Amino acid sequence: MGAYEIEIERTSSPKEKPQGEALGFGRFFTDHMFLMDYDAGEGWHHPRIVPYGPIALDPAAKAFHYAQTAFEGLKAYRTDEGRILLFRPRSNLARLNRSNERLSIPPIDEELALRALKELVRLDRDWVPSEPGTSLYIRPFIIATEPALGVSPSRQYRFVVILSPVGAYYAQGIRPVSIHVEPDYVRAVRGGLGAAKTGGNYASGLRAQEGAAEAGHAQVLWLDGVHRRYIEEVGSMNVFFRIGDAAVTPALGGSILAGVTRDSAIRLLRSWDVPVEERAISIDEIVEAHESGGLKEAFGTGTAAVVSPIGELHWRGERRVVGGGETGELCRRIYGSLTAIQYGRAPDPFGWTEPLDGQP
Amino acid sequence: MGAYEIEIERTSSPKEKPQGEALGFGRFFTDHMFLMDYDAGEGWHHPRIVPYGPIALDPAAKAFHYAQTAFEGLKAYRTDEGRILLFRPRSNLARLNRSNERLSIPPIDEELALRALKELVRLDRDWVPSEPGTSLYIRPFIIATEPALGVSPSRQYRFVVILSPVGAYYAQGIRPVSIHVEPDYVRAVRGGLGAAKTGGNYASGLRAQEGAAEAGHAQVLWLDGVHRRYIEEVGSMNVFFRIGDAAVTPALGGSILAGVTRDSAIRLLRSWDVPVEERAISIDEIVEAHESGGLKEAFGTGTAAVVSPIGELHWRGERRVVGGGETGELCRRIYGSLTAIQYGRAPDPFGWTEPLDGQP
Repeated sequence: MGAYEIEIERTSSPKEKPQGEALGFGRFFTDHMFLMDYDAGEGWHHPRIVPYGPIALDPAAKAFHYAQTAFEGLKAYRTDEGRILLFRPRSNLARLNRSNERLSIPPIDEELALRALKELVRLDRDWVPSEPGTSLYIRPFIIATEPALGVSPSRQYRFVVILSPVGAYYAQGIRPVSIHVEPDYVRAVRGGLGAAKTGGNYASGLRAQEGAAEAGHAQVLWLDGVHRRYIEEVGSMNVFFRIGDAAVTPALGGSILAGVTRDSAIRLLRSWDVPVEERAISIDEIVEAHESGGLKEAFGTGTAAVVSPIGELHWRGERRVVGGGETGELCRRIYGSLTAIQYGRAPDPFGWTEPLDGQP
Repeated sequence: MGAYEIEIERTSSPKEKPQGEALGFGRFFTDHMFLMDYDAGEGWHHPRIVPYGPIALDPAAKAFHYAQTAFEGLKAYRTDEGRILLFRPRSNLARLNRSNERLSIPPIDEELALRALKELVRLDRDWVPSEPGTSLYIRPFIIATEPALGVSPSRQYRFVVILSPVGAYYAQGIRPVSIHVEPDYVRAVRGGLGAAKTGGNYASGLRAQEGAAEAGHAQVLWLDGVHRRYIEEVGSMNVFFRIGDAAVTPALGGSILAGVTRDSAIRLLRSWDVPVEERAISIDEIVEAHESGGLKEAFGTGTAAVVSPIGELHWRGERRVVGGGETGELCRRIYGSLTAIQYGRAPDPFGWTEPLDGQP
């Protein structure tokens, strides 16, 4: 068998699919998963689809100790006609290789990985839900598996893809959330891991997120680690502000993730002739824009929610309601346009959707 | 059975112990490991010693995705009389709980964990090597095991302790190493994870370490992420400089690890009436001290090597030989005194060593 042929072992005991109940996010997993191994010398090999099940690793596997890992998140959507569309999978796989580079993980073959994604989704296609707003979340990830405690890049890895049917993020309609602007904890800093999609950035955010939740806020707005002044991300999403007529979002300076939804939003906005500024934005500028009435909207962008409007910002003890606490016009328009493309209900002028091969 | 009784399942197939060959660091593991589980509601439960073997986790386990992990590293030493001494285990377990706090991991019972460490080492005591300079490395670690992709603290964890017989770090005698001062990559920043012993800090250092190794250097000297000027750590060790008659080491400002060996070195130095300054040290100060002849020594401290003398520093294209490229007096004295205490060859005025219970 060639190195690029994907071996398939079908499950003999398909699981019950969650029915009618709240799917939530990332709580149910399909019948199969994709695996591929790497050994120094041999390279990536043995791509295969197997029944979903536990991964057994030596307790000394480097992923457990040194977080040498990278991951991605993307979605497949079921159209009204029952076709299945992946959204920008090539962008996610290209980013996975950029994360790999930062984490000293050997690059994967993006074409093979795309084929694996499609083959896996095709095999588990009955798991792609059809209720409004639902989708199939795809989680490719790579973990260092060499059982050795020396601090150095692993000589063995496993690439895994798992699938999770996820519920509508906005089952009750889009609702703006309350955000805590974090003064102390830092998510990532230039020179660090912030631009890579890797576990450490998420571990680093948990404590602040817990504190914000205890105070009744949905998420944290992260400021930069150098000046503690420039806005970086909101929760694990990129963030946009509408100031006057322009959409403003932090520039990709090495400490924030180059979100695929961020990029999609920017391209949509520009196609509508909305001026987009990618630049440094200080929290002081946001406060001033709020006080002068220039701050019209604030929202996050990410794969899970598509957009998440910010209804209020809490900073230095002050509560600042944004856009009257309502979902703003740009946010709503991005949500409508992106989801219409994702579900195949609108033309796809950017070529973002990718149908499964060989589907009707 | 009480929650605090440690169940023991002995291996039925003990492994060959590595004989005479180079043990290296963290490559061989003993016959048993300690496990304990956590579930929200139930708390930590089911402490047990079982045969060393693979850990099977759901592929959605949060440790794989969000690096919600913490670990420790300490050692057991065999004395000339065959007794086994743990070195400062309580300090490491206290630090594990500080890491847990930062990572939103529920605290462990330090007394139970100490008992577990001792019971595990006692069971595998024949694995503690006796050749000069060898020891048994103890790696306690905690991983988030809940199979759920939402970014939030896990509701399930596993605490694991594994043991690895390790070789003499300085089989050929202490040898000073060449160090690359890193101008671009950052290990950690204040407000981030730097003070916690968690995977993300190590993942973040791999790329720079690879670059340094390619250029012929043993390790990276990390500068702070804010000013890119103040010295933080060397590789995964704390760092000391002897400037004039004083030992100077970076203060614990939240971005560096509070090393147990660092603390031991400071207390030894003070007991010798060597002035110790814990404060900010810029790379410019080191350059100036080098040029004026005031920089007498530089060395790292850590559990694996105890001390690691720095023979040369490479910064902005310049090679600066420290202490004539030889191991300095303070470094050598700390090494001699610490190892004498660790191997039970000298009195232990600080109460740092902890014998196994019930050993002869």
